[in-house]
Amino acid sequence: MPVIVDKAIYRDGSRHGCGDLSDELASLRERGDAGSFIWIGLKDPTDEEFALVNSELHLHPLAVEDAVNGHQRAKMEEYERSLFVVLKTLRYVEATSDVETGEVMLFIGDRFVVTVRHGDGNPLQGVRHRLELESGKLAHGPLAVLHSVMDSVVDNYLVVDREIRRDLEQIEEQVFGSAAGGDANTIYRLKREVLEFRRASQPLAETLHIYLERGSGRHLQDDARVFFRDVADHLRLVNDHVDNYDHLLTDMLSAHLAAVSVRQNNDMRRISAWVAIAAVPTMIAGVYGMNFEYMPELSASVHVGSGEFRYGYFVVLLAMGGICVGLYRAFRRSGWL
Amino acid sequence: MPVIVDKAIYRDGSRHGCGDLSDELASLRERGDAGSFIWIGLKDPTDEEFALVNSELHLHPLAVEDAVNGHQRAKMEEYERSLFVVLKTLRYVEATSDVETGEVMLFIGDRFVVTVRHGDGNPLQGVRHRLELESGKLAHGPLAVLHSVMDSVVDNYLVVDREIRRDLEQIEEQVFGSAAGGDANTIYRLKREVLEFRRASQPLAETLHIYLERGSGRHLQDDARVFFRDVADHLRLVNDHVDNYDHLLTDMLSAHLAAVSVRQNNDMRRISAWVAIAAVPTMIAGVYGMNFEYMPELSASVHVGSGEFRYGYFVVLLAMGGICVGLYRAFRRSGWL
Amino acid sequence: MPVIVDKAIYRDGSRHGCGDLSDELASLRERGDAGSFIWIGLKDPTDEEFALVNSELHLHPLAVEDAVNGHQRAKMEEYERSLFVVLKTLRYVEATSDVETGEVMLFIGDRFVVTVRHGDGNPLQGVRHRLELESGKLAHGPLAVLHSVMDSVVDNYLVVDREIRRDLEQIEEQVFGSAAGGDANTIYRLKREVLEFRRASQPLAETLHIYLERGSGRHLQDDARVFFRDVADHLRLVNDHVDNYDHLLTDMLSAHLAAVSVRQNNDMRRISAWVAIAAVPTMIAGVYGMNFEYMPELSASVHVGSGEFRYGYFVVLLAMGGICVGLYRAFRRSGWL
Amino acid sequence: MPVIVDKAIYRDGSRHGCGDLSDELASLRERGDAGSFIWIGLKDPTDEEFALVNSELHLHPLAVEDAVNGHQRAKMEEYERSLFVVLKTLRYVEATSDVETGEVMLFIGDRFVVTVRHGDGNPLQGVRHRLELESGKLAHGPLAVLHSVMDSVVDNYLVVDREIRRDLEQIEEQVFGSAAGGDANTIYRLKREVLEFRRASQPLAETLHIYLERGSGRHLQDDARVFFRDVADHLRLVNDHVDNYDHLLTDMLSAHLAAVSVRQNNDMRRISAWVAIAAVPTMIAGVYGMNFEYMPELSASVHVGSGEFRYGYFVVLLAMGGICVGLYRAFRRSGWL
Amino acid sequence: MPVIVDKAIYRDGSRHGCGDLSDELASLRERGDAGSFIWIGLKDPTDEEFALVNSELHLHPLAVEDAVNGHQRAKMEEYERSLFVVLKTLRYVEATSDVETGEVMLFIGDRFVVTVRHGDGNPLQGVRHRLELESGKLAHGPLAVLHSVMDSVVDNYLVVDREIRRDLEQIEEQVFGSAAGGDANTIYRLKREVLEFRRASQPLAETLHIYLERGSGRHLQDDARVFFRDVADHLRLVNDHVDNYDHLLTDMLSAHLAAVSVRQNNDMRRISAWVAIAAVPTMIAGVYGMNFEYMPELSASVHVGSGEFRYGYFVVLLAMGGICVGLYRAFRRSGWL
Ligand SMILES: [Mg+2]
Ligand SMILES: [Mg+2]
Ligand SMILES: [Mg+2]
Ligand SMILES: [Mg+2]
Ligand SMILES: [Mg+2]
Ligand SMILES: [Mg+2]
Ligand SMILES: [Mg+2]
Ligand SMILES: [Mg+2]
Ligand SMILES: [Mg+2]
Ligand SMILES: [Mg+2]
Ligand SMILES: [Mg+2]
Ligand SMILES: [Mg+2]
Ligand SMILES: [Mg+2]
Ligand SMILES: [Mg+2]
Ligand SMILES: [Mg+2]
Ligand SMILES: [Mg+2]
Ligand SMILES: [Mg+2]
Ligand SMILES: [Mg+2]
Ligand SMILES: [Mg+2]
Ligand SMILES: [Mg+2]
Ligand SMILES: [Mg+2]
Ligand SMILES: [Mg+2]
Ligand SMILES: [Mg+2]
Ligand SMILES: [Mg+2]
Ligand SMILES: [Mg+2]
Ligand SMILES: [Mg+2]
Ligand SMILES: [Mg+2]
Ligand SMILES: [Mg+2]
Ligand SMILES: [Mg+2]
Ligand SMILES: [Mg+2]
Ligand SMILES: [Mg+2]
Repeated sequence: MPVIVDKAIYRDGSRHGCGDLSDELASLRERGDAGSFIWIGLKDPTDEEFALVNSELHLHPLAVEDAVNGHQRAKMEEYERSLFVVLKTLRYVEATSDVETGEVMLFIGDRFVVTVRHGDGNPLQGVRHRLELESGKLAHGPLAVLHSVMDSVVDNYLVVDREIRRDLEQIEEQVFGSAAGGDANTIYRLKREVLEFRRASQPLAETLHIYLERGSGRHLQDDARVFFRDVADHLRLVNDHVDNYDHLLTDMLSAHLAAVSVRQNNDMRRISAWVAIAAVPTMIAGVYGMNFEYMPELSASVHVGSGEFRYGYFVVLLAMGGICVGLYRAFRRSGWL
Repeated sequence: MPVIVDKAIYRDGSRHGCGDLSDELASLRERGDAGSFIWIGLKDPTDEEFALVNSELHLHPLAVEDAVNGHQRAKMEEYERSLFVVLKTLRYVEATSDVETGEVMLFIGDRFVVTVRHGDGNPLQGVRHRLELESGKLAHGPLAVLHSVMDSVVDNYLVVDREIRRDLEQIEEQVFGSAAGGDANTIYRLKREVLEFRRASQPLAETLHIYLERGSGRHLQDDARVFFRDVADHLRLVNDHVDNYDHLLTDMLSAHLAAVSVRQNNDMRRISAWVAIAAVPTMIAGVYGMNFEYMPELSASVHVGSGEFRYGYFVVLLAMGGICVGLYRAFRRSGWL
Repeated sequence: MPVIVDKAIYRDGSRHGCGDLSDELASLRERGDAGSFIWIGLKDPTDEEFALVNSELHLHPLAVEDAVNGHQRAKMEEYERSLFVVLKTLRYVEATSDVETGEVMLFIGDRFVVTVRHGDGNPLQGVRHRLELESGKLAHGPLAVLHSVMDSVVDNYLVVDREIRRDLEQIEEQVFGSAAGGDANTIYRLKREVLEFRRASQPLAETLHIYLERGSGRHLQDDARVFFRDVADHLRLVNDHVDNYDHLLTDMLSAHLAAVSVRQNNDMRRISAWVAIAAVPTMIAGVYGMNFEYMPELSASVHVGSGEFRYGYFVVLLAMGGICVGLYRAFRRSGWL
Repeated sequence: MPVIVDKAIYRDGSRHGCGDLSDELASLRERGDAGSFIWIGLKDPTDEEFALVNSELHLHPLAVEDAVNGHQRAKMEEYERSLFVVLKTLRYVEATSDVETGEVMLFIGDRFVVTVRHGDGNPLQGVRHRLELESGKLAHGPLAVLHSVMDSVVDNYLVVDREIRRDLEQIEEQVFGSAAGGDANTIYRLKREVLEFRRASQPLAETLHIYLERGSGRHLQDDARVFFRDVADHLRLVNDHVDNYDHLLTDMLSAHLAAVSVRQNNDMRRISAWVAIAAVPTMIAGVYGMNFEYMPELSASVHVGSGEFRYGYFVVLLAMGGICVGLYRAFRRSGWL
Repeated sequence: MPVIVDKAIYRDGSRHGCGDLSDELASLRERGDAGSFIWIGLKDPTDEEFALVNSELHLHPLAVEDAVNGHQRAKMEEYERSLFVVLKTLRYVEATSDVETGEVMLFIGDRFVVTVRHGDGNPLQGVRHRLELESGKLAHGPLAVLHSVMDSVVDNYLVVDREIRRDLEQIEEQVFGSAAGGDANTIYRLKREVLEFRRASQPLAETLHIYLERGSGRHLQDDARVFFRDVADHLRLVNDHVDNYDHLLTDMLSAHLAAVSVRQNNDMRRISAWVAIAAVPTMIAGVYGMNFEYMPELSASVHVGSGEFRYGYFVVLLAMGGICVGLYRAFRRSGWL
C-alpha cells in the first residue's frame, strides 16, 4: 500500500511502530489510554485504496465520499464517531504570482487520526516531524494533531498573504509611480488570486467559529480550546488583509484606468494642438497661393522694385511664424502642450 | 391518469405495485410500519389532475396552490401533517451557454411522497431507479426520497457550476488573451445566468439551514441529519463559487471595457499622429506654392543656372522628408506609433 | 358619512347590516362569539371624519396619527388592544412604465376591522367581495380579513413584478440587440421604479417576519399561521426578484454606456481614417503644385513631348489613387473601416 | 447663570417656579410623587457653567465629559442613576442646500431632566411650550420630556428628508431633462449632505432599538413603550429614504457622466464629420491646382473653345459639391450630423 | 534589563518601588489587597528579554508568541489566568499625510499589568503619568490601567480622524474648487490610509463588544463597565467617520475622473472647432488656386479693368472671413468655444 505515506502509534507522545490496523486499534481502545492513538498519513488515495483503510476504521460514508472526490469547501463536519476536517492549503508560485490551492483532510477519531493530502506542497511531513519533537503536545491525543495541521496551514496563509501584499505594492508602484505603468490584466489576475485565497481562508474561519461556539469544540477544556482560538484569531487577521487587498485592487483598477485614459487624452490633445498650429500657415499659404493677378496687400512689393518685394514676402512668412509661435505659447499656457 | 408518471409502494426498501390510493394508504397506516410508503410521481399536473391525487392525500391547500402555479422560490415549508419542498433544478444548454431553471416539488407525508416535476430535464426517474437499488436507504421511509432528490439536484448544480466556470475561463482568455477580444454582451449574459443560478441555489441553502436548525429537521436522528448537512455543505460550496463568478464577471467587464477603450484610443492616437505627420509637408508645399515671383531661399536656384536649380528643389523635398522621418521617430519614441 | 365606503357585520361568515357602531360593538362583545365582527371600509378620511369613527372604536392615537397622515412605511404595529397594519399597494402604469404607490391601513381589533385606503387602485372592494363568497374563511374573524388584504396586495406585487421584468427584458433587447440602442435615461428610470417597488415590499417582509417570529403572530394557531407564512414566502420571492432587477440594471447601465462609447469611438476612428486617407493626395498635390519650374521627376514629361507628358501625370494620379487604396485596405484589415 | 435658558418644576403636569436646585430636588424626592420633576434647559454651557449644575445633580462624569465636549454620536447611554441621551438635530439651509447638524443632550434622572443644546436651530423651546399645554403627557414624568424631544427631532428629520428629496428631484430633472444639464459637483454635494443626514439618523435608530429591546426601555409599560416605538418607526422610514437617496445619487452620477460624455463625443463626431466633408474639395482642388500644363480630363475644355471651357470648370465644381452633399447625406443617415 | 522602560508597585493608587518580581508578586498575592498590583512597561522586547519577564509571570505561551511576533489584529483574548489585549496605535505624519500603525499589548493578571510597546509614538508614558495623578482610579487595580491605555489610544484615533477629515476636505476643495484640480493618486493614497485606519479601529470595536457582551467584561461592576462602554462608544463614532471617508473618497474619485475627462474633452472639442474653422478658408483658397484660366465668378474682375479687380478679390476674402466669423459664432452658441 504505497498510498500510505506514514503510519505510527503515539503513546504518551512518543512514536511506536504500527502493525495490523484493526489489531492495534482494538488494543488501544482496550487499554483506554486517552493520549494514545494511531496516525495514518495518506496521499492522493484512489477509491479502492481508501476503502482498504476504511475497512478497518469505519469512517462515515459521506466523509469518505468527500475525501475521495476532493474539491471540497473548508469545513469541520462532526459525525457520530469522528470529526471530519477539510483544509485548503495555499502555495504561492513566485514565477507566475499564482496562488495554488491544495487540500488536506483529517479524520479525527477516538484513537486514530487519518490525514489525507491532495496535490503537492502540503507541509504535513514537517508537521509530523515537529510534533514528534514535542511529546508533551502529542500526549494530548488526536486533537493535538488537528491543531498542529491547522496551525501550520494558517501560518502558511500568512506567508502567502505577505507575498500577495508584496505583489500588490509592486503594482501600486507601477500604477502610481512616475512612469504611470501597470496594466489592467495584472490587476485583474491578482484579484483573481486574492479571491482564490479568500475561498480557502474564509470558509475555514466560519467553520472553526461554529465548531468552537456551537459544535463539540465548545466542550474542549479551556487549555486546549485556547489553541484553536489562536488559529481562529490568525485567520481573522488573514481575512481582514484579504478583504483589504480586494478593495485596494478595485480602487487601483479605477485609478489605473483613469491614468491611462488621462495620458491617452493628453496625447490626443497634444497631437491635435500641433495639427491646429500647422493648419494656420497652410491656410495662409493657401490664400497667397490663389494666383490672383493683383493682390492689394502684396501689390506694393510684387509689381514694384525688388527691394520692397523681399519685405512683403517676409511679412507674410513672419506673420505665419508669429501666429504659430503665438498659438504654441497660448497652448502651453493652457497646458495643452 | 397519464399525469402520474410512476406510482409504487415501498416496503422495507423493496418495490410493490400500488392499487387504489386511499385503500393502500389506510392499510399502510394501520400496519404502522415506519419505513413503508407510497411514492407517486407527477409531471406538469393541471389543477384538476392534481385535485384527483389530492382528494386521497388531503395535502394543504396552500401547498397545492404553489404546486399547481409553479414558479416558486426554493423552500421547505412545514404544514401540520406534511412537509412541502420546492427545489429549482438547473440545466445547462451548451449551444447557448444558457442556464435553464426547472422545478421539482415534493410533498412528504407520514406514509407517502408525492414528487411533482415541472418542465423537462429533471432527473427524478434516475433518482427513483438508483434508490430502488439501495433498499437499505429506501427503508428509512419518505425522508430518504427527499434526501435523494435533493442530493441529485445539488449534484447537478455542481455540474452546471463546472460549465459556468468553463464559460468564465473562456471569456477570461478572450478578454485577457493576446487578441484582447471578448465583448460586453457575452459577459453580461453570463452574469445573468449566474444570477439565475444563484436564484435557485441560495434560497435552498437558506431554507435547508432553517429546516435543520429551527424546523423539524432539528429532531432528525443524527445519522439521518448528517445526510442533509452533507447536501447543505455542497450547497455552500456552490454558492461560494457562484458569488465568486459574479464578482469576477464584474471585474472582467471593467477590465474588458478598459481594454477596448485603450485600444480604440491607441488607434485614434496613431491615426492622428499620421495626419500630423502628413500636415507638415502639406504646409511646406503650401508655402512654396505661394507663387511669389521672388523667393529668397529659392531665388539662387530658380533664377540662376539649372545646376543649383536642382539642389534647391531637393533641399525642400529633403526638408519635408526629414521632418516627416523626425516626427515619425519622435512619435515612435513616445509610443504613439 | 360618505367617507365610509362600506360597513357590515359578519357572523359565522355571512354578512349582516350594521346599525349604530357602538351599540353593535357592545352587543358583539357581549355575545362573545369569536368569529363575529364589524368591518368598516374608509377611503381618504380627513382628520375629522376619522375622529367620528374613532370616537366609537377608541383606536390608539399614534395609529390614528399615522392613518391620517399617510406616507408611512409598511409595518405591523401591535398596540394594547389592536393591531395596526400599513401596507403599500403598487400599481403599474403601462403608458409610462411607472410604478405608483398607494396605501392601505388596517386596524384589527377584537370585534372589528377598519380598512383605510389612500389613493385609487386599491383592490379592497374585490377582496371583500371574494371573502363574502368564502364564508368558511370569514368565520375565522378579523385576522381572515387581514390575511385576505395582505394576500391580495402581495399577489398584486407579483403582477407588477412581471411587468417590471417585461420592461427589463425590453431594455435588454434594446441594449444588447443588433441595433445596440437603449438609453441611460430609461435604465435609470426603471431602476427608480425598482427602488420604489422595493420600498414597498421589503419593509413588509421585515415586519411580517417580526410579527410571526417575535410578535403576537407567534401565538397564532398553526393552521392560521401557515397562511401568513405563505404571504411571507411570496414576499421573499418578490424581494429576490427585485434585488436581481436592481443588479441587472446596474450591469446593463455599464454595458450600455460601454456600447455607446465603443460605437462613438468607432465612428470617430472611421471618420479620422477617411480624413487620413484624404490627407495623402492633398499632400502630394501640394508638392506637385509647388510651381518649381524644373521638377526632376516631372521634367521628362513636362518639357519633353506630349506622349510622355500624359504618362507622368497619370503616374502621379495613380500613385495618389494607389496610396489611397492601400491605406483603405490596411485600415480595413485593422478593423478601422 | 445666563447659560440656564429655562428652569421649572412640573407637578401633575403643571408648571411651578423652581428655587434652589438641591432643596427642590430633595423635597421632590421626599414626597415620592412619580410624575413631578425639575426641567432645566441649558445652552452651550462651558465646563465651569456645567459644573455648577452638576454639583447639585451628581451626573455621571463620562456623560458630563461628552456633554461638554459635544460632537458625539447619537446614543442612549444608561448609567446607574440616569439615562444620558445624545440627539443630532438637522437643519436644512435652503440657500446652499446644506444640511447642518446640531446637538441636543438630555440627562434623564428620577426627578429631573436636563436638556443641553449646542448650536442654534434646536426647537427645544417649542417642545417645552407644547408639552406645557399637554399636562396629561407631562404628568408621566421625565420620560415624557425625552419622548417629546425625540419626537420633535425626528419629525424634523422628516422635514429635511422632504427638502432633500426635492433637491434630488431637481437634479434628476436637470440630468434627465431635455437640456441634459446638471453637474457632478452638485450631485456629489447632495450625496455628502445625505451622508451627513444618515450620520445623524442611523445611529439614533440603532441606539433606540437597543434601548427598547435590551436596555431599560424593555421595562417601560406598554402604553409608554409604544410612543418610543412610534419614533423608532418614523426613524426607519427616514433611514429607508436616506439609503434610497444615496443609491439614486450614485446612479444619477453614472448616468450624468454618461450623458456628458455622449454629448461631447457627439460634438466631436459632428465637428470631425464637417472637417471630413471639407477635406474632399480641398483634396480635389489640390489635384486641379497642380499646374500640369496638360490635364487629360480638363484639356478638352481648357485648350479648346470657351463654350466647353465653362462646362469643364462647372463639372469639377459640381463634382465637389455633389460629393459634399453626398457625404452630408450619408453622415446624416448614420446619425453623425 | 534596559528593555524594561518602567516598573512600579501601586498600592491604593500610590506608586512604590518594585524589587524582585517574583517576591513582590508573592507578597501582593498573600496580602489579597485587590487594588494593589505591579505595572511593568516593556518596549520592543526580543524573544529572550521577554522570556526573563515571563519566567516570573507565567503568561500563556500563545499570548507570548503574539507579543514577540507583533503584527497582530486588535483583540482581547481571555486566557485562564490573564487577559491579553492587543491595541493598534495610530500616528498621523503631517509631511506625507501618512497614517502609521504601532502596537501596544497588555497582559492583565490578578496582581500585575505588563504593557508592551512596539514602535515609536505610543503615548504609554503619558498614560502612566496621568494615572499616577489620579490615585482614586489607580486603586481600582489592573483594569484601570487597561481602561486608561485604551481610552488614550482611542482618543488618539479621534485626533487622526480629524487630520484625515482635514486632508479629505482639502482634496474636496481641489477636486470641486474653481481650478478643478486634484489627482487620482492623492485620492487613492488617502483611501489607503483610511483602510489602514479602519484596520486598526474596527477589530477593536468588535473585540471590545464581545468582551463586554459575552466575555468576562460582562461580569464587571456597572461603575467600571460604563467606562469601557464609553471607549466602545467613541470607537463607534470613529468607525462611522472612517466608513464615511471611504465612501466619500470613492465618490470623489468618480467625480474627479469625470471632471478631468470633461475638461480634456472640452479642450479637444475647442481645438477641433478651431481646426474646422481653419479648414473652410483653406478649402476656398484651394478652389480659387485651381488655376483655371477662366473662372466665371472671377472673370469679370480678373480679365476686365483693375477697378473691378479689387472688388472680386475682396469678395472672396470677405466670404472667407464671413464664414469663419459665422462658424465662430455658431460654435460659441453651442458652447463649443
Ligand atoms: Mg490562477
Ligand atoms: Mg490561482
Ligand atoms: Mg500559528
Ligand atoms: Mg505556530
Ligand atoms: Mg511576487
Ligand atoms: Mg475620446
Ligand atoms: Mg437566459
Ligand atoms: Mg437562463
Ligand atoms: Mg451529493
Ligand atoms: Mg451523491
Ligand atoms: Mg459552455
Ligand atoms: Mg459531501
Ligand atoms: Mg416614478
Ligand atoms: Mg413611480
Ligand atoms: Mg397569494
Ligand atoms: Mg391567493
Ligand atoms: Mg411595460
Ligand atoms: Mg404560496
Ligand atoms: Mg456640507
Ligand atoms: Mg452639511
Ligand atoms: Mg412624530
Ligand atoms: Mg408628533
Ligand atoms: Mg432646496
Ligand atoms: Mg407614527
Ligand atoms: Mg497568536
Ligand atoms: Mg501608507
Ligand atoms: Mg500608512
Ligand atoms: Mg476618551
Ligand atoms: Mg479621556
Ligand atoms: Mg494633512
Ligand atoms: Mg464619552
